[in-house]
Amino acid sequence: LLRIALFGAGRIGAVHARSIAESRDAELAWICDPVEPSATALAGRHGGRASADPDEALADAAVDAVVIASATPTHIDLIRRSVDAGKKILCEKPISLDLAAIDRCWADIRDREPLLMLGFNRRFDASFREVHERVAAGEIGTLRTLRITSRDPHPPPAAYLATSGGMFRDMTIHDFDMAGYFLGDVVEVSAMATTNGDALFEDARDHAQAVVTMRAASGALCTIVNSRTCAFGYDQRLEAFGDLGSLEVTNQTATSVQASDGTRTGATDRYVDFFLERYAAAYRAELAEFLAAISEGRPPAVGFSDGRRAQALAEAAIESVASGRPVQPQPAP
Amino acid sequence: LLRIALFGAGRIGAVHARSIAESRDAELAWICDPVEPSATALAGRHGGRASADPDEALADAAVDAVVIASATPTHIDLIRRSVDAGKKILCEKPISLDLAAIDRCWADIRDREPLLMLGFNRRFDASFREVHERVAAGEIGTLRTLRITSRDPHPPPAAYLATSGGMFRDMTIHDFDMAGYFLGDVVEVSAMATTNGDALFEDARDHAQAVVTMRAASGALCTIVNSRTCAFGYDQRLEAFGDLGSLEVTNQTATSVQASDGTRTGATDRYVDFFLERYAAAYRAELAEFLAAISEGRPPAVGFSDGRRAQALAEAAIESVASGRPVQPQPAP
Amino acid sequence: LLRIALFGAGRIGAVHARSIAESRDAELAWICDPVEPSATALAGRHGGRASADPDEALADAAVDAVVIASATPTHIDLIRRSVDAGKKILCEKPISLDLAAIDRCWADIRDREPLLMLGFNRRFDASFREVHERVAAGEIGTLRTLRITSRDPHPPPAAYLATSGGMFRDMTIHDFDMAGYFLGDVVEVSAMATTNGDALFEDARDHAQAVVTMRAASGALCTIVNSRTCAFGYDQRLEAFGDLGSLEVTNQTATSVQASDGTRTGATDRYVDFFLERYAAAYRAELAEFLAAISEGRPPAVGFSDGRRAQALAEAAIESVASGRPVQPQPAP
Amino acid sequence: LLRIALFGAGRIGAVHARSIAESRDAELAWICDPVEPSATALAGRHGGRASADPDEALADAAVDAVVIASATPTHIDLIRRSVDAGKKILCEKPISLDLAAIDRCWADIRDREPLLMLGFNRRFDASFREVHERVAAGEIGTLRTLRITSRDPHPPPAAYLATSGGMFRDMTIHDFDMAGYFLGDVVEVSAMATTNGDALFEDARDHAQAVVTMRAASGALCTIVNSRTCAFGYDQRLEAFGDLGSLEVTNQTATSVQASDGTRTGATDRYVDFFLERYAAAYRAELAEFLAAISEGRPPAVGFSDGRRAQALAEAAIESVASGRPVQPQPAP
Repeated sequence: LLRIALFGAGRIGAVHARSIAESRDAELAWICDPVEPSATALAGRHGGRASADPDEALADAAVDAVVIASATPTHIDLIRRSVDAGKKILCEKPISLDLAAIDRCWADIRDREPLLMLGFNRRFDASFREVHERVAAGEIGTLRTLRITSRDPHPPPAAYLATSGGMFRDMTIHDFDMAGYFLGDVVEVSAMATTNGDALFEDARDHAQAVVTMRAASGALCTIVNSRTCAFGYDQRLEAFGDLGSLEVTNQTATSVQASDGTRTGATDRYVDFFLERYAAAYRAELAEFLAAISEGRPPAVGFSDGRRAQALAEAAIESVASGRPVQPQPAP
Repeated sequence: LLRIALFGAGRIGAVHARSIAESRDAELAWICDPVEPSATALAGRHGGRASADPDEALADAAVDAVVIASATPTHIDLIRRSVDAGKKILCEKPISLDLAAIDRCWADIRDREPLLMLGFNRRFDASFREVHERVAAGEIGTLRTLRITSRDPHPPPAAYLATSGGMFRDMTIHDFDMAGYFLGDVVEVSAMATTNGDALFEDARDHAQAVVTMRAASGALCTIVNSRTCAFGYDQRLEAFGDLGSLEVTNQTATSVQASDGTRTGATDRYVDFFLERYAAAYRAELAEFLAAISEGRPPAVGFSDGRRAQALAEAAIESVASGRPVQPQPAP
Repeated sequence: LLRIALFGAGRIGAVHARSIAESRDAELAWICDPVEPSATALAGRHGGRASADPDEALADAAVDAVVIASATPTHIDLIRRSVDAGKKILCEKPISLDLAAIDRCWADIRDREPLLMLGFNRRFDASFREVHERVAAGEIGTLRTLRITSRDPHPPPAAYLATSGGMFRDMTIHDFDMAGYFLGDVVEVSAMATTNGDALFEDARDHAQAVVTMRAASGALCTIVNSRTCAFGYDQRLEAFGDLGSLEVTNQTATSVQASDGTRTGATDRYVDFFLERYAAAYRAELAEFLAAISEGRPPAVGFSDGRRAQALAEAAIESVASGRPVQPQPAP
Repeated sequence: LLRIALFGAGRIGAVHARSIAESRDAELAWICDPVEPSATALAGRHGGRASADPDEALADAAVDAVVIASATPTHIDLIRRSVDAGKKILCEKPISLDLAAIDRCWADIRDREPLLMLGFNRRFDASFREVHERVAAGEIGTLRTLRITSRDPHPPPAAYLATSGGMFRDMTIHDFDMAGYFLGDVVEVSAMATTNGDALFEDARDHAQAVVTMRAASGALCTIVNSRTCAFGYDQRLEAFGDLGSLEVTNQTATSVQASDGTRTGATDRYVDFFLERYAAAYRAELAEFLAAISEGRPPAVGFSDGRRAQALAEAAIESVASGRPVQPQPAP
């Protein structure tokens, strides 16, 4: 049994706590959160010792690995200290809102060859994974265009927006990772965005909707369509189009019920809402991959460089919106 | 150009008039209807001479073929006279409500080897035809069960019901023909029906809903589900299930629009309503087959024996409802 | 925590063992199986003491409830002894292959008012449940026809067939329960079946395919289509058709991937295969309902009479196939 | 009966000839084509007098209207001469490959207030039209993003590419019109394109794939995805996304057949291929609108300014690809 320390007892921390508690291969050793009652409450449900201080957990020689699900500004510091403590690391996205800080972090830790996995949950979803595998197996021939749709059902609260780093770093980051997953390196990023004239987004200097176009080094083109609201649920789609055909990830409903009446036919329910439900199995598969990489002594499927690449695309999109021009993403040093 | 006399200027007569008028291979020579103003009005739109008397048309040596779309009780007499006059015949279903009369008619005309086609329009629908072809080509292996759904959007008026011969002879007859088309001879018919407690059907001693189960000589099983009303439109489906898979005809909408909102996703419009719309192309294809059979001097795709077979299944279903037992359809003499 | 003794360590026993082990409200106290190594192995994975003798568990005063998942012929005896021991009971279907034995059992235990739940897993599936709730809420008006499709992906082994009681008691039993769930009492059952000429079913005097038609006391009609094989996976569908529309349970795939290529469009994967996968959540919900009924001191959602009703329909179908006639199911004494 | 002169006897001319011949409200008076045998052949099928010289038709006082379906470089000259001759005009897209020439043409003819309709066939397709009407009726609230997919099944021949004006003017022009139809004025156009490394497109200095992003004056965003090839048929989709939901035009197949087998389920046929089939009814509806506008003495649904607007967006996209920057479309003078 791998013994895990969890940093962060918030919404996503609770997801990881549950996955760890339910895993046959791991157990929760520590839950650390600056708001100690949150850590205590979560430990009460899933096990482990609670603490406000991550150093307690890092100092525990029995701890094999850490899961970093704390506030974004703490990620890099916790990564550094976890590497120092010799722990394996699963870190939630984003690594940081500051690309230079990400590069400095990597420069400092790379020689230690840390086992460090990035928590891009969508990579572990059965549908996205299957499309990736079938594309890789050549089913659609050369991939020509990738189309990603990602719409959240409800806007986040203003307080969340204030520290989120903005739509591209916070939400589109998953789509940028998908783009990297399917297309590899991207050489050009062009973005347009709008607040919908909504005060929530105006005040946060953030976006309600955005569209991003990208060109990959392979020549393939990619579009991303984002919205912070979606009346019909969590809209998570992808279309990979190639010379021989297309493979699509379509939306999912909680049941397979279809209704027909005097005005409409074949109506399915609202789409699964929200990421905790849509990606419940993906979060478990993500943890399983982390544990498998540890026990097999191999790099995990998603590494630091994937997190860095997605972040660079987010920065490029931000700059494109600001400048009104396409932007080349900054290559890794 | 084949010159055609149309008998019957009602709803289905108008369909044929239009098909003939639009065909490049035929022209309307006569339209005959006992209600002469109906014939005159239809001839005004589509051409041809109007008459109350079919004998005028039958006596016209320039007439090559007749389309019998008059009231059911006139069919057999018009068939006989058309054979006598040496005309090719396309006759609407049913041949007659009286199986014995059908058999006598055939006994009397068979030696003349008339070119006589039955108007089972669904045979000429692109979807039903494609499924039949793919089943025949072996795509699903041995056919094991056939499931037919046929629901009309609105009940007919009481006056129609009074002379229709009842649901099995009037409506299910198309499903019985489909069963014959896919399964060949049927050896056992079992039916249940209900009026829904609706006075319209109670008074007409007819049915609102029915289910029919049949066993084919091949061993395959078949179910038919019928309703005289359907809130969501004209429900016309078929599933052919075999050892290697299934082929289904699904319902059709006028557009390919899908709507999603706060409560439902992927909702399509009401199904196409009603047979004139759903089978518009099929009626044209049916006429084209009739004309092609004439010009090629070969038997048409659907003949007298198909009409007789469907009628025998209808009679068996009626007897099954009456007796509460499965019934063997009466074989052709 | 409710302490549970599980009888039967076979395929379905393993499902229950896992559900109990994962439940927050229960724990596995005993696993009993005449093949003791099976019980020991399962207890090794999910906890509990293993035994070849159910009396050990029944004699354990700390045991609150039993789950009967043993061979069908043992069900009635275990029900009786569990009632005698004052345990709550969740019993797998069927209660017995012998309707008279079922009625005797009930006559003997009814005065004890046992908390006894029948394990009709499909009742706890989110899709079937939702359709039932929406029908009950009046969404489709009066229910007129119910159509159930149930096809297993692969035929069971000959050894299983030999003791299964035949397709109607073993497989269709779930469909009969669905019919009862939606329609209440059934007054007429008519069935046709075929072996497909397959030696497996010929030798077992069993069926490869069957169709059943039923009339409910309410006047509604019902069809069931069954097959022991299905090339495209586990086919589990239902259509409830009423005056105002229809509600359908459609099939489910493991992912939401759709593929299009030069010959086909919108193709989804094979359907989920088999019941352990398709109904994984339903089995957990079934156990949760059992535990909730115990803790709330109320009758469970599915009781002995439901099991008896489904069995009576199975017997009627068997008699209908034998006699070639519709059969009235035998009412409860 | 309106008497129509058709200019151009090529592929699209043949479509119009047939629509006119089948219309109850019009007849073909002339068919003019510089390749006179083409005009003669088409007139042989659909009626009218054939000529190599459009002036013959324009001089015929009995001609009410002209349909301009000739080579693009002739459009403006024929528009001018038809206006001079006092004829009503239905002109195929594009008006011209030269935006300045379009503006000069309009400056010269505007005071004559010609009845001039542009042949954007997709506007008359039942699905696109229905979505537009439902959006206009407020069904999805404020329109936020519009997504258009347009992929041709097969690349055109090199000879066609050479004079087509390039993908944006020739193919995307329909999508630009759709964007204008739904969004009104567009203020920013950004485009990326690729040849796929295919010599056909390299040599023609044209594109195999393109993605276009646009911002409307309303604030709404729009993406267009184009391809000159598509393995699964003619891909014609649109998604209108608003605050209350979405409305989509999905693809269409010739039949409603779905196939399931051991590896795939619910597979429909290849999409309808190509525009003559997909938009057959739209072409007829387009002509009907033209005839209705004439007989009602009102401007047609699609006018010169719509053609000019789409052309300006095409020019902006071309400039965006060339400069690598977003471009403001040139406003009408």
